[in-house]
Amino acid sequence: MLLDGNKISINGRDISWDDCCMRLIAFAQDGHARLGARLGADVVALHEVIPALPPDWNLALGALGLPGSAASLQARLAEAPKRPLASVKLLPAVPRPGKIICIGLNYVEHAKEGNNPIPDYPAVFFRGGTSLAAPGEALLRPRVSEKFDYEAELVIVIGQQARHLTEDNALGCVAGYTCMNEGSIRDYQRKSTQWGMGKNFDRTGGLGPEIVTPDEIPQGPNALRITSRINGQTLQDSNTSDMIFSVPRILTILSEAMTLEPGDIIATGTPSGVGYPRKPPVFMKAGDVAEIEIEGIGILSNPVEDEA
Amino acid sequence: MLLDGNKISINGRDISWDDCCMRLIAFAQDGHARLGARLGADVVALHEVIPALPPDWNLALGALGLPGSAASLQARLAEAPKRPLASVKLLPAVPRPGKIICIGLNYVEHAKEGNNPIPDYPAVFFRGGTSLAAPGEALLRPRVSEKFDYEAELVIVIGQQARHLTEDNALGCVAGYTCMNEGSIRDYQRKSTQWGMGKNFDRTGGLGPEIVTPDEIPQGPNALRITSRINGQTLQDSNTSDMIFSVPRILTILSEAMTLEPGDIIATGTPSGVGYPRKPPVFMKAGDVAEIEIEGIGILSNPVEDEA
Repeated sequence: MLLDGNKISINGRDISWDDCCMRLIAFAQDGHARLGARLGADVVALHEVIPALPPDWNLALGALGLPGSAASLQARLAEAPKRPLASVKLLPAVPRPGKIICIGLNYVEHAKEGNNPIPDYPAVFFRGGTSLAAPGEALLRPRVSEKFDYEAELVIVIGQQARHLTEDNALGCVAGYTCMNEGSIRDYQRKSTQWGMGKNFDRTGGLGPEIVTPDEIPQGPNALRITSRINGQTLQDSNTSDMIFSVPRILTILSEAMTLEPGDIIATGTPSGVGYPRKPPVFMKAGDVAEIEIEGIGILSNPVEDEA
Repeated sequence: MLLDGNKISINGRDISWDDCCMRLIAFAQDGHARLGARLGADVVALHEVIPALPPDWNLALGALGLPGSAASLQARLAEAPKRPLASVKLLPAVPRPGKIICIGLNYVEHAKEGNNPIPDYPAVFFRGGTSLAAPGEALLRPRVSEKFDYEAELVIVIGQQARHLTEDNALGCVAGYTCMNEGSIRDYQRKSTQWGMGKNFDRTGGLGPEIVTPDEIPQGPNALRITSRINGQTLQDSNTSDMIFSVPRILTILSEAMTLEPGDIIATGTPSGVGYPRKPPVFMKAGDVAEIEIEGIGILSNPVEDEA
């Protein structure tokens, strides 16, 4: 492990971390997905300190009792056994979400740049778990397309089962937030009216680096600068305050239809500046490094490789 | 348990079964989803006879080695301990699929009845596991809509991890087939361009009653009569030979993008005769009984209730 400012090199790749806070990660151990708490450059494996934690990652997250339990959880970990962050193999911040719900066209300028009308109801589509990539892991540009676009998104991670939420109580089900590069294969996204194909190529969606509990962003989820960079060049730069449907509103709308469960995640849409409407278009290709940064949440960095 | 011809009453509800074959079911036991083999009116709990079976349902299905292992599996179960089918609590035939991939507009007459063009590429969307209902379990008409439509669909259940399939080898990843009532809330389906909301209301999609291994349908998956009935009245009556994209073609197209995994399911689209374009429209309501029947696969029967 190399610690250089807030960058830690894991498996030869730099990942940026805020070094003062307790945040949750997912890592692989003995073939299992484990839930960890990061404390600076160390990790506490939560199943080692909370023996009753269910082995299933999503159920374990639910058993933590977030968001209300964040302070007591942090206090409990001070004396816990730790291992170096650099010694663990990171997984997508939620390794296998029960549901990956995505909101399309949730920023006015992004709707406009694609010549879409400003929606009065969110466009809701889903991704599958096979489309995710871990922090630091290479995103894969598929064999069949060169139109691999980036999308910076704030992701809501559900911590408590919820249905029929109101905007007043909606945030009570949120375990935390993370970053996503909701990578999209644009030509496949448009092969039919439904975007499912273009949003589900293997390992096109980076998720992480970690789950930040709500107590760490007292300004709330709709007051955060959100940017994307390819090879250091800023291509998206907006604020989650520009969302058409705020985080509480999204939770209210979705939970009118469906039960939200611990380990479900909701990608809340991307701001303007994506690659396909640019002149000339910008798409991700092998050798690129894609970064998503959200204020208070962190930096998700993924290199890009061609599918083998 | 009451056995009357091929009907068995479970939890006070009649479920129809072919009584000669080995077929796979999902059932609840001690808070776990278990994989069972049905032999007539009995069930073998597979984890009791195959000790190395992973506890995770989807991984257990994959560990069976279907479709190639169907005959040897059946032979192995003859002497196994059995319990009455009527004594178990059935779950959706795949209780928590890794992915629920749905194909829209896959029958010519269904595309026409909704005034949609005949597609040259499948419309791909997803459902989440919370939208499923078990065989015999009540489908829920939500509080917020009366436009709860039925859709009879043949479902492919993946048994082997697969990517980049060809039409010649595609069926080698199929553990079996089951029935789905891919219940849809039509007004919510049309609130945006993406159908995700209308396809994901809790417990609107019946799945089952069981997984039929490919050896049981020697004619293959694209030569099966498929019907739906509401309160005994036939409303859809077609044949899977009328699919625009056949089962091998669907598997080939999807696996160009994504890895298919054991426990993933693919709903292959519904034929004409759904409720919304009828004059007057037909929607499911409390007290109805909805049945989906597919030749060689079985009958999926669900009553309908109002959401509480």
